[in-house]
Amino acid sequence: MPVETHEIALETRGNGHIVDLTGEIVTRLSSGTIRAGTVTVFVVGSTASISTTEYEPGLVRHDLVAAYERFAPEDGEYEHEKTWHDDNGHSHVRATFTGPSICVPFVEGALTLGTWQQIILLDFDTRPRQRRIVVQVVGE
Amino acid sequence: MPVETHEIALETRGNGHIVDLTGEIVTRLSSGTIRAGTVTVFVVGSTASISTTEYEPGLVRHDLVAAYERFAPEDGEYEHEKTWHDDNGHSHVRATFTGPSICVPFVEGALTLGTWQQIILLDFDTRPRQRRIVVQVVGE
Amino acid sequence: MPVETHEIALETRGNGHIVDLTGEIVTRLSSGTIRAGTVTVFVVGSTASISTTEYEPGLVRHDLVAAYERFAPEDGEYEHEKTWHDDNGHSHVRATFTGPSICVPFVEGALTLGTWQQIILLDFDTRPRQRRIVVQVVGE
Repeated sequence: MPVETHEIALETRGNGHIVDLTGEIVTRLSSGTIRAGTVTVFVVGSTASISTTEYEPGLVRHDLVAAYERFAPEDGEYEHEKTWHDDNGHSHVRATFTGPSICVPFVEGALTLGTWQQIILLDFDTRPRQRRIVVQVVGE
Repeated sequence: MPVETHEIALETRGNGHIVDLTGEIVTRLSSGTIRAGTVTVFVVGSTASISTTEYEPGLVRHDLVAAYERFAPEDGEYEHEKTWHDDNGHSHVRATFTGPSICVPFVEGALTLGTWQQIILLDFDTRPRQRRIVVQVVGE
Repeated sequence: MPVETHEIALETRGNGHIVDLTGEIVTRLSSGTIRAGTVTVFVVGSTASISTTEYEPGLVRHDLVAAYERFAPEDGEYEHEKTWHDDNGHSHVRATFTGPSICVPFVEGALTLGTWQQIILLDFDTRPRQRRIVVQVVGE
């Protein structure tokens, strides 16, 4: 069976909350039968992104949050907010920049991640969110 | 047949023109036989990117354009322009930052996009362009 | 055989060194049997990214380096550095922003790249590194 699709549902705190997805993804892949192929990790929604980092508090609670804040400040002016009486213009901008998906090769039943490289969800929205992440592996 | 490749050709206005590709992609996928797999959306060329956003005028005509302009200003100094007597140094920088591709899972004949999440082409070049987007699905 | 995995090992200078991977990737793909499918290019490690650009000195030695420096300055304050007595906080931030992977369609034995579009490794770390890039093609 060449395609297996898994889903991860989780609650975030929003506001730049970064969640380590690696353990959940490994568990899902272990429950499948595909041993080699490409794993796509995709977040549903337009105010969050998927990427990788070394998951340690300095980066995920401070440095990444600060960098995205410099790039698209929360209190900046956004037409999106004027139109929709919303407060998450910066969340959308950050999400588009980094994008909703990454792909990771899967070889002999293991992701080819580095030792200090975890797969992360970055939730840029301005409130706690129930998030769905789709993990799909195509292979053999 | 496990691989199907589609192509979208379209004209953009350049200068940060953001185009909603979702409808065209859905149409292409509907014409194929694969019902589950991973869809790669890739833009040919090095002055444009693919990502997702909520496709509404505030974001796509103002906020995203303004954020990329802050990040890599059109009137900044670029060695690329001195070397090639060109004017699109900022376009290249923006395109590399966000990247040329995303991958979206396709399940039971539908993309796993959120309700307010559209697949977009961001054309950063400084003139109208004829663009080619390759949409490839690998699955079953 | 629907999945083929190749690996590229190379030495970089770090510090924003951008390497053109296109030739190596084409060589690896030519040695395989898959003629159509999706190619994932993934860098192992959390201080480097994969993207595309026009590989010419103005962009890869100056403009891209300068843009990433404006976005996440090398001499900025990073909690990561305080915690780990490290100096590469900016490297991690840049790598997460642009991401570790891209996907490129492969059609009739050729990547669908533009004429002036090369696949690049961006090494943001602060020292020369031995890097591993995994190139995986899933197709037929």
